[in-house]
Amino acid sequence: MNFASDNTAGIAPEILQALVAGNDGFAMGYGNDDMTRAVERRIGEIFERDAAVFLVPTGTAANALALAHISPPWGAVFAHAEAHILTDECGAPEFFGGGLKLVGMPGLGCKVTPGTLADTVSQYEGHAPHQVVPAVFSFAQASEAGTIYRPDEIAALAAIAHAHGMKVHMDGARFANALVRMNASPAEITWKSGVDVLSFGATKGGAMAAEAVVFFDPATAANMAERRKRAGHLLSKHRFLALQFQAFLANDCWIRLARHANAMADRLAAGLTAAGRPPAWPVEANLVFVVLPKAVEARLKAAGARYYVRRSESLPARLQPDQCLIRLVASFATREDEIDRFVTLAAKA
Amino acid sequence: MNFASDNTAGIAPEILQALVAGNDGFAMGYGNDDMTRAVERRIGEIFERDAAVFLVPTGTAANALALAHISPPWGAVFAHAEAHILTDECGAPEFFGGGLKLVGMPGLGCKVTPGTLADTVSQYEGHAPHQVVPAVFSFAQASEAGTIYRPDEIAALAAIAHAHGMKVHMDGARFANALVRMNASPAEITWKSGVDVLSFGATKGGAMAAEAVVFFDPATAANMAERRKRAGHLLSKHRFLALQFQAFLANDCWIRLARHANAMADRLAAGLTAAGRPPAWPVEANLVFVVLPKAVEARLKAAGARYYVRRSESLPARLQPDQCLIRLVASFATREDEIDRFVTLAAKA
Amino acid sequence: MNFASDNTAGIAPEILQALVAGNDGFAMGYGNDDMTRAVERRIGEIFERDAAVFLVPTGTAANALALAHISPPWGAVFAHAEAHILTDECGAPEFFGGGLKLVGMPGLGCKVTPGTLADTVSQYEGHAPHQVVPAVFSFAQASEAGTIYRPDEIAALAAIAHAHGMKVHMDGARFANALVRMNASPAEITWKSGVDVLSFGATKGGAMAAEAVVFFDPATAANMAERRKRAGHLLSKHRFLALQFQAFLANDCWIRLARHANAMADRLAAGLTAAGRPPAWPVEANLVFVVLPKAVEARLKAAGARYYVRRSESLPARLQPDQCLIRLVASFATREDEIDRFVTLAAKA
Amino acid sequence: MNFASDNTAGIAPEILQALVAGNDGFAMGYGNDDMTRAVERRIGEIFERDAAVFLVPTGTAANALALAHISPPWGAVFAHAEAHILTDECGAPEFFGGGLKLVGMPGLGCKVTPGTLADTVSQYEGHAPHQVVPAVFSFAQASEAGTIYRPDEIAALAAIAHAHGMKVHMDGARFANALVRMNASPAEITWKSGVDVLSFGATKGGAMAAEAVVFFDPATAANMAERRKRAGHLLSKHRFLALQFQAFLANDCWIRLARHANAMADRLAAGLTAAGRPPAWPVEANLVFVVLPKAVEARLKAAGARYYVRRSESLPARLQPDQCLIRLVASFATREDEIDRFVTLAAKA
Repeated sequence: MNFASDNTAGIAPEILQALVAGNDGFAMGYGNDDMTRAVERRIGEIFERDAAVFLVPTGTAANALALAHISPPWGAVFAHAEAHILTDECGAPEFFGGGLKLVGMPGLGCKVTPGTLADTVSQYEGHAPHQVVPAVFSFAQASEAGTIYRPDEIAALAAIAHAHGMKVHMDGARFANALVRMNASPAEITWKSGVDVLSFGATKGGAMAAEAVVFFDPATAANMAERRKRAGHLLSKHRFLALQFQAFLANDCWIRLARHANAMADRLAAGLTAAGRPPAWPVEANLVFVVLPKAVEARLKAAGARYYVRRSESLPARLQPDQCLIRLVASFATREDEIDRFVTLAAKA
Repeated sequence: MNFASDNTAGIAPEILQALVAGNDGFAMGYGNDDMTRAVERRIGEIFERDAAVFLVPTGTAANALALAHISPPWGAVFAHAEAHILTDECGAPEFFGGGLKLVGMPGLGCKVTPGTLADTVSQYEGHAPHQVVPAVFSFAQASEAGTIYRPDEIAALAAIAHAHGMKVHMDGARFANALVRMNASPAEITWKSGVDVLSFGATKGGAMAAEAVVFFDPATAANMAERRKRAGHLLSKHRFLALQFQAFLANDCWIRLARHANAMADRLAAGLTAAGRPPAWPVEANLVFVVLPKAVEARLKAAGARYYVRRSESLPARLQPDQCLIRLVASFATREDEIDRFVTLAAKA
Repeated sequence: MNFASDNTAGIAPEILQALVAGNDGFAMGYGNDDMTRAVERRIGEIFERDAAVFLVPTGTAANALALAHISPPWGAVFAHAEAHILTDECGAPEFFGGGLKLVGMPGLGCKVTPGTLADTVSQYEGHAPHQVVPAVFSFAQASEAGTIYRPDEIAALAAIAHAHGMKVHMDGARFANALVRMNASPAEITWKSGVDVLSFGATKGGAMAAEAVVFFDPATAANMAERRKRAGHLLSKHRFLALQFQAFLANDCWIRLARHANAMADRLAAGLTAAGRPPAWPVEANLVFVVLPKAVEARLKAAGARYYVRRSESLPARLQPDQCLIRLVASFATREDEIDRFVTLAAKA
Repeated sequence: MNFASDNTAGIAPEILQALVAGNDGFAMGYGNDDMTRAVERRIGEIFERDAAVFLVPTGTAANALALAHISPPWGAVFAHAEAHILTDECGAPEFFGGGLKLVGMPGLGCKVTPGTLADTVSQYEGHAPHQVVPAVFSFAQASEAGTIYRPDEIAALAAIAHAHGMKVHMDGARFANALVRMNASPAEITWKSGVDVLSFGATKGGAMAAEAVVFFDPATAANMAERRKRAGHLLSKHRFLALQFQAFLANDCWIRLARHANAMADRLAAGLTAAGRPPAWPVEANLVFVVLPKAVEARLKAAGARYYVRRSESLPARLQPDQCLIRLVASFATREDEIDRFVTLAAKA
C-alpha cells in the first residue's frame, strides 16, 4: 500500500530494458550522439512541431531552468499558491532565475481561474521600476491536486498572460496522466492552447530520472544549452537519458503506463466513494485526495499504508479539528489488490 | 578506437546489473531509503571517517555545489588555469557560488606547486574590502593532464591553504585512477593530507551518472541538503543513484575498473614511446597526452580514431606550427586491440 | 501640498550645512577617515551598544544587504505582505540574497501579530529539504501604514522568531518617526526587544542619501564590508555619508525633525477627522491614510495636491466602488498652511 | 601631499554650490523630476546622440550594472588583467551578472592590444556549451595606469569585439581626463569608435558621488531601470544626483577640472623626470606611476606623502628587490606647491 508518490515506484520494465539494450559500445558524451538526436525528433513529432528539446534528470531542474530562461531576474512568475515550484523546490526557480519572484494565487483544487490571474497580474503593473515585472504564468498539468486544465481553460489563461506580455509555462511532471484523460492531442493541450514552454516529465511516469524542457518556439531557447551546462544538468553519458525517453515514448508506452496509473486512481476514488469517503475534488489524473477522520488515518498508517498528510487552502471547506487531508498517488506499479485493501481499511464502520 | 573520453563508455556490467536487481518494489524518494543510508555508511568506511555524503548525477554539480558550500560569494577559489572547473563547466562554480571568483594558476602537467599557490594567494590579501577573499584551493586528482598529486604534495598545498584560512577541495572525477597508482589509502590522499571536501566520481569510472560530494567534517555540510535540492540535484528515485554507488564500491569493483583503465593508458604510453611518440608528461592515471605532427593526427582521424585536440599552457615546450597536442582517454571498456591499432597508426615512419 | 513622500523634500538645513562645512581638504576614501569612525561611535552611543555600522546611500540597499547577510539563499524572510521589501524594492532582497524567498503575511494597518507569525512560520517546518528554511522576521518601524510597534509587541514577535532559530530585522526607514512617538529609547525598541539588525534611515528624515545598517551583534557582521563593496554601495568619498549622519544625529537634530513631521501628520489627521474624514487607522508616525470618495480625490488632485492612491489589504473594511485610499506623508519640510489648505479641500460638504 | 586617489578630494565648489542652490522646495523622487530629465538630455547633447542614461552613486555600480546588462550569466567579459573591474570591485560584476566570468588579459601600461584581444577571445570559441560565451570587451579610459586609448585604437579593438558578437564597454571613471588629452570629441572616443556602453564618471572629477551609465543604443537599455532599482542604486532624492551632473557638465566645468588635474600630473611627471625619476609609462591623464628605491619611498612616507604602493605586471621591466612602484593621483584639488615639495623629496641625491 505505497501511495506516497509516483516516484516511489521503480523503473518501468520497458524502460529498464532499453537501458540494458543500449549499453553496448561507445557513444559521444553530452548529447552529441544519435540516440539523443532521435529523441529530440520524436518529441517534435509527438507535439507536431519543430521544438527545442533539452533533457535533464529532475523535474525541479526542468522547471527552474525553463522559468529562468523565460523570465528576467526582475520578473514575476504567477502560479497557484500550492504549486510545486512554490512549495517543493526549495527556491530553485529563484536560484536559477537570479532572484525572480514567485507570486502565489488561490484557487480550488489547485487550479487558477482566469479571473484570479487577471486580477493578480494587474497588481503588478503601473508601479515601475519599484515592482517586479509580470513575466510568466506557470501551471501544473495535472495540477498538484490531480485536477486538470482543459484546452479551453488553458487558452483563456494563456490569452491573459500573452496580453500582458508574459510567457506560459506548463509543469508537466504528470503530463501523460492529464493527457490520457482528455480527448485531445499533446499539441492541443500545449502550444495550440498557448503554452510556450513545457516541462515534460517521464520520471513519475515510469522512467528512472528523465525530464525534457520543450520550447515550442526554438528561437526562445537560444543559449539554453549553456544554462543547462552551468547548472550541472548536462549529463556526460547523455545517451542514457535519451534511452529512457525513447523507450518511454515508443509504442505508446507512456500512454499505457499513464492509463494504468489513472485507472488505479479511479478505482481508489470509486472504492472510497462507495466506502463513504469521497475524494475532496474530482480525480482527473493519478492523485486522490481524501479527507479522513484522524482516527481512520491512524488506522491506515498502522496498517502500513504509505501516503502524505497534506495542508491545503484549496479545499472547498475547512477541515474539522478531528480531520486530516491525505494524498494518495497511483503509479504504473500500483496494483488493484493494494487499493482494495486500502479501501477496506478506510471504509466507514 | 574511441579515446575521446572515459564518458563515451557505457555502464560497467556490475553496475548495470545492480540497477536491474534493485528495481523491484517501492522505495521512498529523495534519499529516504535504506539503500542510500547504506551507501553513505559505506563511503564513510572507505574513507575511515564519519563523513557527510551527498549523491548527485554529474561531476559539474558535485564540484559547483561543493565549492559554493565552502566559499562565500566574495570568495576566491584558486585552481590550475586548465582545471575543469575553470574551463569546462561553463561558469557553474560562479553560478552556484553567487558570483565567486575562480583564479587560475600556471603549472606544468596541470599541477600547481606550493610556491605558485602561496604567491598567488598573497596577491589577494591586504586590500580588503576591494578584493575577493581567499576561500578555497581546488585541485583535480587525477589532474586534467592525468598527472597525480602524492600525499606529501597534497599536504604541502593544504598547509598553505589552511594557513590562509582557506578550505581544500579535491575534484575526484578520476579519483580511483589516481588512487590505484599510489601505495596509499583513500583516507591518506584526502583528509589525512588536508582535503576538506571531495567530489568523488563514479561516472567516468563506470557508473551511468553518479557522483558524491563528501564533506570530511560533517559540520561543514549544514544545509547542503537544501543547496542540492534547490539546484535540482536531489533525484526523486534516489535509490538508483545509491545502487550505482553500491555496486561501484562493492567487491573492489571500482578498484578493478580503474586498474584496467590505467593499464590501458600505460599500454598506450608504452606503445607510443616505442613508436617514437613519447607522452607529453608522465602517464599516472588513465589519460595520455601526446604531441603529434599534424599530418599524423590527420591520418589517425581519417582512420576513425576519436579523441580531442587540446590547447595547453602546461607543456614543457611550445608546440611547433606543424604539431598538435592530442588527449587520449582509456576507460574500463577500452580494449588492447584498439590501443595496438592506434599505436601502429601513430608510429613514426 | 506635496504629500507624495518624505523623500520629495530636500536636505534639512543642518545637514546641508554640514556637507558644506566638511568639504575642505582631503580625506581618505572608502570610509577610512576620522569622520566615519566618529559616526560609527556615535551610533553605538545612541544605541548604548558596541555595534557594527555600515553606511549606504539608499534604504533598499540597507534592507537588501542586511537581509542577505542574515539569511542563506535557501532562507525564508517573513514580513507583512505590504512591506516595502516585498512590494517596492523590485526584488532587491531576492537579488542580494541569492534567491531567498520573501513570505508575505496579512495584518491590519500593515502590522503583523505574533499569532500570524507563529502560524506562518510553522508552515515552513517539517518538510526539509523541499522547502526553504525560516531565516528572518522583518518588520518596518514605523510600518508602511504609519503604525508603530511598541516594545512589548516587538519582544513578542522576536521571541517567536528566535525560538525558530530566526533573526529579526527592523526596516527603520522611518525609525525616528516611530521613536519619538514612544516613551522609549533607541535601545529599548531595538536590541533590548530582540532586534538583531536595523536599517537605520536618515534620508526620509532629512538627509540627502544616507542609511546605516546596524548589526547589534558585531560578530554577525563578518565580511559585510565585502558584501557592501561588491554591491557597489561603498562610496569612495565616504566622508559625505558620514557628514550627513553626523549632522543628523548631532544636537538631537533627527529628533526635532521627526517631531515636526509627526506633528504635521497629527495636524492633518485632526483636521481630516474634524472634516469628517478620519484616518483609516491610527496615525502614529508621519503617514496619514484616509479613505475618500473618488470625487473628492479628483478635486484634491485638480487643486495640485500630490500624494499616492494606494491599494491595501490592511484596511478594516473593503473600499466601496466610489472610494479610494490615499496616502499622505509629512516631512521635516511640511508646513501648516499646506495642511490646512488640504483639509479644507478634503472636507465634507 | 595627498596623492592617494582623486577621490580623497572633496566636492568641486561649482558642484557643491549647485547642491545648495537646488535644495529648495519639493521634487518628485526616484528621478521623476525635471532636473533629471534635463541632465539626461544634456548628456545626449554632449555625446551627439539620443542615449539612455542612468545615474548611480558609485563607479562600481555603474560598471557592474552596465556589464550585467550586456552580458548573460554565461558570458565572458574580457578586460585587462589589472582593470578595476577585475581587481578592485570585490566581484561586483560577477555578483550583478549572475556569475559571469571576467577574463584578464596582459598588456603594457594596462592597455590591451588588438592582437591580445583577438587571441584571447579565440580561446573561448568552439567548445560550446562547456565554456562561457564571449560577451563583452571592457576597457578603462583612462586606463588604471593613466594611459589612454586613441580613437583608432578603440576602433580596432571594437571591431574585433563586434566581429565576435560582443559588446564594448568603456569604464570612464576618468573619462574627462582622457578626453581633454585628445583632440577628439566625446562622441568620437565612444560610440563613433564602437563603444556601446559607457560608465561616465563624475565623482573622481569633482562630484560627491555621481556616475552615469550611458547606453548609446537606447534599445539595449530595456529594463535597466528595474535592474538599477533592485540593486538599490535608484536614489530616492534623485534630484541631488542630477544636480551634481548638471553642475559638472555646465559651462565646461568638467573640462576645466580635468585639465587642472592633468596639468598637475604633468607637472609631477616633469618634475620627477628632471629629478631623475621618470614615470614608468607615459602620463596621459591624471595618474603618475614611478619606480622608486624603497629607501626613497620610506622617506616620502615619513614626510607625510599619501599614495599607494602598487603591484603591476604591466611594467616594461621587473622591479629590483630594493624598488617599488608607487601611484600618484592628481585631482581638481591638487596644488602646485604640494607637487613641488613631493618632487624635491623624491629627487635623486
